[in-house]
Amino acid sequence: MRAVIVGSGAGGLTTASTIRKYDKDIEIVVVTKEKEIAYSPCAIPYVIEGVIKSFDDIVMHTPEYYKKERNIEILTETTVIDVNSKENKIMCIDKEGNKFEIDYDYLVLATGAVPFIPPIEGKDLEGVFKVRTIEDGRNILKYIEENNCRKVAVVGAGAIGLEMAYGLKKRGLEVLVIEMAPQVLPRFLDPDMAEIVQKYLEKEGIKIILSKPLEKIVGKDRVEAVCVDNKLYDVDMVIMATGVRPNIELAKKAGCKIGKYAIEVSEKMQTSIPNIYAVGDCVEVTDFITGEKTLSPFGSTAVRQGVVAGKNIAGIEAKFYPVLNSAVSKIGDLEIGGTGLTAFSANLKRIPIIIGKATALTRARYYPGGKRIDIKMIFNEDCRVVGCQIVGGERVAERIDAMSIAIFKKVTAEELANMEFCYAPPVSMVYEPLSLAVEDALNKLIK
Amino acid sequence: MRAVIVGSGAGGLTTASTIRKYDKDIEIVVVTKEKEIAYSPCAIPYVIEGVIKSFDDIVMHTPEYYKKERNIEILTETTVIDVNSKENKIMCIDKEGNKFEIDYDYLVLATGAVPFIPPIEGKDLEGVFKVRTIEDGRNILKYIEENNCRKVAVVGAGAIGLEMAYGLKKRGLEVLVIEMAPQVLPRFLDPDMAEIVQKYLEKEGIKIILSKPLEKIVGKDRVEAVCVDNKLYDVDMVIMATGVRPNIELAKKAGCKIGKYAIEVSEKMQTSIPNIYAVGDCVEVTDFITGEKTLSPFGSTAVRQGVVAGKNIAGIEAKFYPVLNSAVSKIGDLEIGGTGLTAFSANLKRIPIIIGKATALTRARYYPGGKRIDIKMIFNEDCRVVGCQIVGGERVAERIDAMSIAIFKKVTAEELANMEFCYAPPVSMVYEPLSLAVEDALNKLIK
Repeated sequence: MRAVIVGSGAGGLTTASTIRKYDKDIEIVVVTKEKEIAYSPCAIPYVIEGVIKSFDDIVMHTPEYYKKERNIEILTETTVIDVNSKENKIMCIDKEGNKFEIDYDYLVLATGAVPFIPPIEGKDLEGVFKVRTIEDGRNILKYIEENNCRKVAVVGAGAIGLEMAYGLKKRGLEVLVIEMAPQVLPRFLDPDMAEIVQKYLEKEGIKIILSKPLEKIVGKDRVEAVCVDNKLYDVDMVIMATGVRPNIELAKKAGCKIGKYAIEVSEKMQTSIPNIYAVGDCVEVTDFITGEKTLSPFGSTAVRQGVVAGKNIAGIEAKFYPVLNSAVSKIGDLEIGGTGLTAFSANLKRIPIIIGKATALTRARYYPGGKRIDIKMIFNEDCRVVGCQIVGGERVAERIDAMSIAIFKKVTAEELANMEFCYAPPVSMVYEPLSLAVEDALNKLIK
Repeated sequence: MRAVIVGSGAGGLTTASTIRKYDKDIEIVVVTKEKEIAYSPCAIPYVIEGVIKSFDDIVMHTPEYYKKERNIEILTETTVIDVNSKENKIMCIDKEGNKFEIDYDYLVLATGAVPFIPPIEGKDLEGVFKVRTIEDGRNILKYIEENNCRKVAVVGAGAIGLEMAYGLKKRGLEVLVIEMAPQVLPRFLDPDMAEIVQKYLEKEGIKIILSKPLEKIVGKDRVEAVCVDNKLYDVDMVIMATGVRPNIELAKKAGCKIGKYAIEVSEKMQTSIPNIYAVGDCVEVTDFITGEKTLSPFGSTAVRQGVVAGKNIAGIEAKFYPVLNSAVSKIGDLEIGGTGLTAFSANLKRIPIIIGKATALTRARYYPGGKRIDIKMIFNEDCRVVGCQIVGGERVAERIDAMSIAIFKKVTAEELANMEFCYAPPVSMVYEPLSLAVEDALNKLIK
């Protein structure tokens, strides 16, 4: 028996390790284009910032480690060019150009996503970078150093865009962020919450242009300027943080059913072809609240999917659940988190909601080091929590996790108001900020 | 209409403020023995430690503030000596010895708890202190300074005992902790988790004697030594952190029904006498898991009860729910939290359980500043989570809160394994430590 996994990101490697955890005998082969494996792409901005010393630090394991410790074979710098799902084999090409085939009993597509670069003039100039692989990160740093870059434009104010913007600013560059939407973090936060983040970044000296697209990138051989709203801004380099698209080419070649956005999978992470599984950014999932199909391009999602796929391949039943797309980002002194529905998306979908907000502190008022925390809770008509956004100086991620559980379990505002939040002056206020936001929503119902 | 509240702790003042929030007209009078109000007794150890500069800092509001901002009258240094619940009035005595009566429409008993001091020889010597009020805290500091104290015994290794022990150690004293139980934090953690805390404190230079009672305190006029296991230990002072007992004297005088441990109240925080409410450490509550009566002597509980009592008095329906007694403590570099059932108490009650444990980090392995975190999860026979204990360097409290919600909503291990935990390298691991503990429990079921 052999399981072949295409892709060495969080989804692929978690699947491989999970299969091995429950099945000591099956042969496991991971095929990956990349040279370095087992690193977290989310860490790239923090290496740019300098908090993490080197890109070498974010590589957790080598292929040799997987071979020796887990009996998992990893073929690096090898591209899978075709899948023959009738004969259960894949066609590969290695870095020397040698082509070869591998038979499989189970195939796992963990092909991830590819950066989406809008088709604008100048996108292929030297000095235009994407942020996806560790190689991208290394190239960005090298370019800054070799060209003594002083000014950079970051296109896209999503989490990665802002994390990169902050990292580049801390590295000493002048940073201009360009975002088409009228707010930063448009898919993540409502405008009122996004404004807190925007003001913080502006205070840190980052220039942000909203509601305008990047028109073109100007330069002879390399980036010299960007053009926005008919104005030229001199920059030495451009970071394209304009989102990603699921990489579904191999799935198509295999004949797997493609859904609205990406590869369709069952609860078991099985594609339409029973012995082909798919996990990570290349699959589509179900939105817990709306029941619609959606994407969930997060490392944490890929890990959970990898556990489910790996268990099922090893013969242990496991299911992947609909998602809330809970996410968190740390940008400088701010921790920013969100889960479930935003008011913005609720309005788009004409879902009636009740909002509760609170601004409080993360520790007792008199305890040193407490940080401001802003909370926005979204409840549906039945007064059940369906969304939460938090921006604060600390302790945001776990509060988002708590609210994710509350959303999954359809907890009501009244239940949440009574919920037990533990208290000690160094780690919380006696009246938990989440409870204050819940009370705010309840008060709107009284009036 | 007049509401009279006896006690100015978290429960009493929250009740007063909540009534005022929803009823602008009712007259509100708070009667308290104390001179200073609106402070958090939980903060005392941190002032001793020196993290908080002065006891003045932990006083949040003055009586004048309550008068001016909330139209709440506060009578300080005034003792309520009797209640006549037939005629709806209380008898008070002020610090000058003047006796007077106050009529009430609603009475709220927020009389708190009194320290329990075991009846041992020497307990009344100079240099023996309890830790309950801000005055106790001020007296401890004053005694240390005036007598140049160098050695202290802390009796009781509960949260307050250990917080005080750490604070006194940081203030430069030699500290001996004496605990009758065979572990520290006996009502809070299982022995395996408590051991992590014990080892940390011992590494910090605190001496801990377990499984032995304090036999006597020795001294002529003032403390000179303590005797444990027939041995004398020279100390300059003794801190009695030997627990508290509900203060139910007034409730008895009023004729309120007393339950197994303290004042019996309804979900609305109403006593057996309809216009008398009670909140805080003086009432008994229902344990969510066992359904038995229990105590919940936490500031956070008192606040939630105060909100419920206040709303009901103001004519807005609200209910107080059964408790898990979620709690957290910060001792030096350790954050320690627990909620629900421990394995120890499950065994005592013969409740079959499944345990899942994990040791992990609070940030991605390569991200600087990550701390070790140890998690123990308790599941019942149906594989639903019923308890969680966490000891770690950061981010413990909110994880406990998340697990409290999970326990309240009877979440299964399988659901928890699929639960969405948000991820970013600076604030979490891609595989959430809670999920690792859940997987550990699930693995035990497979085998």
